[in-house]
Amino acid sequence: MTVKIAPSVLSSDFARLGEELAAVEAAGGDWIHIDIMDGHFVPNITFGPAVVKAMRPHSSLPFDVHLMIEPADPFIAAFAEAGADVISVHKEGGPHVHRSLQVIRSLGKKAGVVLNPGTDVGGLEYMLDEIDLVLVMTVNPGFGGQAFIPAVVEKVKKVKALTGDRPIHIEIDGGVSTANAGLLARAGADVLVAGTSVFKGGTEADYRRNIQALRDSL
Amino acid sequence: MTVKIAPSVLSSDFARLGEELAAVEAAGGDWIHIDIMDGHFVPNITFGPAVVKAMRPHSSLPFDVHLMIEPADPFIAAFAEAGADVISVHKEGGPHVHRSLQVIRSLGKKAGVVLNPGTDVGGLEYMLDEIDLVLVMTVNPGFGGQAFIPAVVEKVKKVKALTGDRPIHIEIDGGVSTANAGLLARAGADVLVAGTSVFKGGTEADYRRNIQALRDSL
Amino acid sequence: MTVKIAPSVLSSDFARLGEELAAVEAAGGDWIHIDIMDGHFVPNITFGPAVVKAMRPHSSLPFDVHLMIEPADPFIAAFAEAGADVISVHKEGGPHVHRSLQVIRSLGKKAGVVLNPGTDVGGLEYMLDEIDLVLVMTVNPGFGGQAFIPAVVEKVKKVKALTGDRPIHIEIDGGVSTANAGLLARAGADVLVAGTSVFKGGTEADYRRNIQALRDSL
Amino acid sequence: MTVKIAPSVLSSDFARLGEELAAVEAAGGDWIHIDIMDGHFVPNITFGPAVVKAMRPHSSLPFDVHLMIEPADPFIAAFAEAGADVISVHKEGGPHVHRSLQVIRSLGKKAGVVLNPGTDVGGLEYMLDEIDLVLVMTVNPGFGGQAFIPAVVEKVKKVKALTGDRPIHIEIDGGVSTANAGLLARAGADVLVAGTSVFKGGTEADYRRNIQALRDSL
Amino acid sequence: MTVKIAPSVLSSDFARLGEELAAVEAAGGDWIHIDIMDGHFVPNITFGPAVVKAMRPHSSLPFDVHLMIEPADPFIAAFAEAGADVISVHKEGGPHVHRSLQVIRSLGKKAGVVLNPGTDVGGLEYMLDEIDLVLVMTVNPGFGGQAFIPAVVEKVKKVKALTGDRPIHIEIDGGVSTANAGLLARAGADVLVAGTSVFKGGTEADYRRNIQALRDSL
Amino acid sequence: MTVKIAPSVLSSDFARLGEELAAVEAAGGDWIHIDIMDGHFVPNITFGPAVVKAMRPHSSLPFDVHLMIEPADPFIAAFAEAGADVISVHKEGGPHVHRSLQVIRSLGKKAGVVLNPGTDVGGLEYMLDEIDLVLVMTVNPGFGGQAFIPAVVEKVKKVKALTGDRPIHIEIDGGVSTANAGLLARAGADVLVAGTSVFKGGTEADYRRNIQALRDSL
Repeated sequence: MTVKIAPSVLSSDFARLGEELAAVEAAGGDWIHIDIMDGHFVPNITFGPAVVKAMRPHSSLPFDVHLMIEPADPFIAAFAEAGADVISVHKEGGPHVHRSLQVIRSLGKKAGVVLNPGTDVGGLEYMLDEIDLVLVMTVNPGFGGQAFIPAVVEKVKKVKALTGDRPIHIEIDGGVSTANAGLLARAGADVLVAGTSVFKGGTEADYRRNIQALRDSL
Repeated sequence: MTVKIAPSVLSSDFARLGEELAAVEAAGGDWIHIDIMDGHFVPNITFGPAVVKAMRPHSSLPFDVHLMIEPADPFIAAFAEAGADVISVHKEGGPHVHRSLQVIRSLGKKAGVVLNPGTDVGGLEYMLDEIDLVLVMTVNPGFGGQAFIPAVVEKVKKVKALTGDRPIHIEIDGGVSTANAGLLARAGADVLVAGTSVFKGGTEADYRRNIQALRDSL
Repeated sequence: MTVKIAPSVLSSDFARLGEELAAVEAAGGDWIHIDIMDGHFVPNITFGPAVVKAMRPHSSLPFDVHLMIEPADPFIAAFAEAGADVISVHKEGGPHVHRSLQVIRSLGKKAGVVLNPGTDVGGLEYMLDEIDLVLVMTVNPGFGGQAFIPAVVEKVKKVKALTGDRPIHIEIDGGVSTANAGLLARAGADVLVAGTSVFKGGTEADYRRNIQALRDSL
Repeated sequence: MTVKIAPSVLSSDFARLGEELAAVEAAGGDWIHIDIMDGHFVPNITFGPAVVKAMRPHSSLPFDVHLMIEPADPFIAAFAEAGADVISVHKEGGPHVHRSLQVIRSLGKKAGVVLNPGTDVGGLEYMLDEIDLVLVMTVNPGFGGQAFIPAVVEKVKKVKALTGDRPIHIEIDGGVSTANAGLLARAGADVLVAGTSVFKGGTEADYRRNIQALRDSL
Repeated sequence: MTVKIAPSVLSSDFARLGEELAAVEAAGGDWIHIDIMDGHFVPNITFGPAVVKAMRPHSSLPFDVHLMIEPADPFIAAFAEAGADVISVHKEGGPHVHRSLQVIRSLGKKAGVVLNPGTDVGGLEYMLDEIDLVLVMTVNPGFGGQAFIPAVVEKVKKVKALTGDRPIHIEIDGGVSTANAGLLARAGADVLVAGTSVFKGGTEADYRRNIQALRDSL
Repeated sequence: MTVKIAPSVLSSDFARLGEELAAVEAAGGDWIHIDIMDGHFVPNITFGPAVVKAMRPHSSLPFDVHLMIEPADPFIAAFAEAGADVISVHKEGGPHVHRSLQVIRSLGKKAGVVLNPGTDVGGLEYMLDEIDLVLVMTVNPGFGGQAFIPAVVEKVKKVKALTGDRPIHIEIDGGVSTANAGLLARAGADVLVAGTSVFKGGTEADYRRNIQALRDSL
């Protein structure tokens, strides 16, 4: 399975999101990763459905929307309508994550479940029929300046053992770099979210070089 | 007192916020109004401090930040650092709005208090030493497609009677148009937030014409 | 204006709601008052939309639904669909009561605003265009065994002064009896919720006698 | 162990609960299953303690009360007093489920723990001394029109392996029908909640036939 | 009416509360003011019922307990049992403050209602039959290092106009000193909470001198 | 590894905390265990940072602070500044416990994670790099009069198997006595919190005798 690189708009220039999206697509990005924070599930606010909708015409890549909000259910339809292709909700986001996954699927979108660094895989075995993706966090979401947490690599392997041959993506978010991309891919990951490791430099040429470096490191 | 026009970025194109800001400034806007929603105080999410920060270099106009979030206090410093000049909190936002106003002032920013359409002016008389602005909502915030609520004009007059000669702005947000701008100004308002009535058309020339129409209607 | 008597199903036999509704209608009740509690706005749970829907075929009287729930907005449509004719929300129920009233009206239902015993009338002046009813509580809602609070009679007069000649009902709920019904009507009330003062005795004949006694006391 | 059939009043006619209870008892039901929802743990409101109390005189069967409320603890005593025989709380209902179970037992009632479809069995091993029942949800609670989730059958087996020979019931709720009752019983379940699969038809004769069909399918 | 001085234990040495209480009583304090914070109504935690209970044997003065907690109702009985004589709840503490006052009275304790600096007196007119005290905050509670807010003096006069000749105490808390005690007493206050202005110095002799200075300034 | 005895101040006399701390230190206690409750995570309020700070000068023993509050993160710095040496947060306290542990460590304090009686050890395997202590509750925290829960001993063994040779303390809290101390130590525990089993008697001589009895029982 080819590993996909998903540049995270959280590291792009919010004053010209349209141009940034075009640039990372031209530079070879596979998916666009979009972090939604509401200041409640995590202590930071980023952006909501209207911003996603404004970005939609500027990219033909899949929009991979990571909901760090609680409750998530009242907003799922809005993100689906705004143009999300994948919508992921946290296993820790409440007692009804299985239901949230059903709702995402019922809207014709791919459904993902997210595991925080300290969260175990328990319960995932009952969600396998509902999910297209497991997002394994390798930093704690919503807080800046975090370092990659190596203990989570073992969790990636556990998730891979659970998903087996099913067409379920394993995505990694947090501190992904050329130093660990290969390790993560070998553990089972096939989608790597990349923030500054893609957007550093600030030009399309930089993005192309950065994405290529990540691919080469696999 | 000259009436200021505050274009609301909520009606601009989020994919090119930098250009939009430059255009409304060139077109004659006085303040930039920024609506922050967290999906909890209101059932919508817009954007957070990092987006404000990204907009800051693209405009020399005052950034007038309306917090529709609860609790507001944990985020006030972040918006101050991101470049806000005025920060407004809702009177209905919790039991400690007076304290929030003190916090905003202590960060060197202008402090505003917001009144929802159904909220009376009670308590405002004890906040007059702490505020630079009263934002009177003429639609219910956070919900789309609202019509201007005429009953609120009487409230604007009450606020004006309370603030008297103090240097406290009275700002109006919701359905402001050439049809009511003059009425609002005569009732005491001196800052008018304008969304689609500024941004309709989509070009700088449109914005200039729209802003001028609002001014002419006063 | 004739005073209406609104028997409250909270005092009826929940094991045979259909029969109880038929009996109070036959006995001369004008409206059916239905108290919805969620265990959060008040520390008691009563019943939800499905119970209202089940009651609907058993009465041709207007269903007057008092929402003691928070938040109310996510449930308004369900109560409208279940057969409510009047839906009332608490002024203390959150920062957006004006918006809730708009939502109720937009569903084609009559909208009411409720005032707890300790709540003043402030803000009501900005809701007059949105309301069909003001429900003045004369006990604290959601708690059993409460006595009528006489200090609230002055509030009824204030509400009447505010609503004037508008077609806005003033409804009273809590400890209404033959001892105070006349006093309340003279203060401006035109809908009286009656629980045990209607349902005591337990037969249709009792209900008829009880309702008549209330009418006679006016 | 004989499998018990527990008709769920959620599928009965709320306008004549007393008659419905008598009918399902005459029709051979074993337990009465009562779903309590508060609009917070799940996005629906059903009924509270006073409705349970009103039902109590109409049935001699055990009342099996499933609390889909948060927090549950403040209401446990009220449901015990209202006539519940079994009270079940969700493992996902908060950090102190073990304590809630102790409280239920201390009131002389049987205590159950509920597992949502996406919830694993972790922690159950430390509750075995406190529980009389494990309720395994085979649909997501509080949402209408759900289909039986087959992945949960494996969880039933895991629960059975944990409870072993202890006198702990394993109850199933959600989409139970003649198509899966036997499968569930073989996996370890001994109480089957049945809603429309019992109440379809609407007469006592229907209920008897429906219950018998479920028994025959085992 | 003689003005009472109520030393606030918040400014005493928590490692020897018993001795501190004995010292301020010997030094001439009239009431003991106890600030209860839960980290939710205000962003600070102080102490709960067990600490109040431990203090009780060390003083014969009335314990005047100010609840800065939300919700307050579940804790009122515990503070009553712990030895409180006056229990005060915030008008902003929730929709049912009138009910909380009834609960306090029903436990045989004096009931107080608290007004934050930005809160108006609206609604107080309907609580007069339920209260023994109005606590007017002259700083925002729960935050350190606050200065006395002079705008609140007008509110004290309004409260006095409302309470008239009723035996209702008017208490002031926040920045009370010899510089403003007389002003507050003339505005209608008859109980002054004093923190560092009593406890500065740290010995019983200091406390006596400090209390005397406050009395002399009246 | 020598087993440490950690007297819990919750069982001491709050009116003379300074003396009590000196007495248990003289009597041979190893750590001081401090239970922080906010009335939200648990239905009881104890004390906050200022009380910890007041205790600090009266003991040279490590202060072992158990946070039974939610959210914990906004208070961690205050407890660190107040003099805590170990700060523990509940695994059930929210979705970001791994992050809370990082914050505690970043302040130079030892970090602990707490497991309620009904909580499994899942996820602990990803926290091992962040923790200095696992606190296994053998009663449900925040409720009085609880008996030691024997089923938890197996959990202690599981934790020990996970922590292995790492320098991670395993602490037990709840009903620890001479009857079970040895059993717990053999299962892997090396810090035993003791409340009444240390403070019964009320004098330093009693405390010494009680602590010695616990040590002898190991």
